[in-house]
Amino acid sequence: MLILITYDVNTSDPAGRKRLRQVAKQCVNYGQRVQNSVFECLLDPAQYRMLQSRLISIIDDQKDSLRFYHLGNQYQGKIEHFGTKSTYKPEGILLV
Amino acid sequence: MLILITYDVNTSDPAGRKRLRQVAKQCVNYGQRVQNSVFECLLDPAQYRMLQSRLISIIDDQKDSLRFYHLGNQYQGKIEHFGTKSTYKPEGILLV
Repeated sequence: MLILITYDVNTSDPAGRKRLRQVAKQCVNYGQRVQNSVFECLLDPAQYRMLQSRLISIIDDQKDSLRFYHLGNQYQGKIEHFGTKSTYKPEGILLV
Repeated sequence: MLILITYDVNTSDPAGRKRLRQVAKQCVNYGQRVQNSVFECLLDPAQYRMLQSRLISIIDDQKDSLRFYHLGNQYQGKIEHFGTKSTYKPEGILLV
């Protein structure tokens, strides 16, 4: 199933950038980064529970917002994209 | 139907911040901003076509990324949230 993960962090703060890198590191094992703080991950239910648990342990729940959207298995027709399709290169922007 | 709209812009650039404000202004008429560049909008098909057309006209398709996710009408069980739930106040961050 496709899980869309969106994460809100102020990346002007080094600690926030570190948390975003940690979130991305977990997510890219299961899918791809489609925007700065948006990840699409293909997961089975066990992987989803594990990834969700890891991400919850990374975020600062007083500062960050983490949302999961369940797009199911028939997700191909549910996504539309406009604008730049260039691959996001987190190392160029996010590393401190 | 619920449409999730995600938008990637570099808000360190005044023109980008302006575009993000313009995107948000369109989206909040139909739903709510749940993260910095993530909007959940309740739309019928005609509204969706109109909003999508407006947003495409706002973005810089060489710099920005705009994605639409169709969550349908049975979206309540498809969304999970963790972390801060404080209302996002764009005027405090995004105005130049």
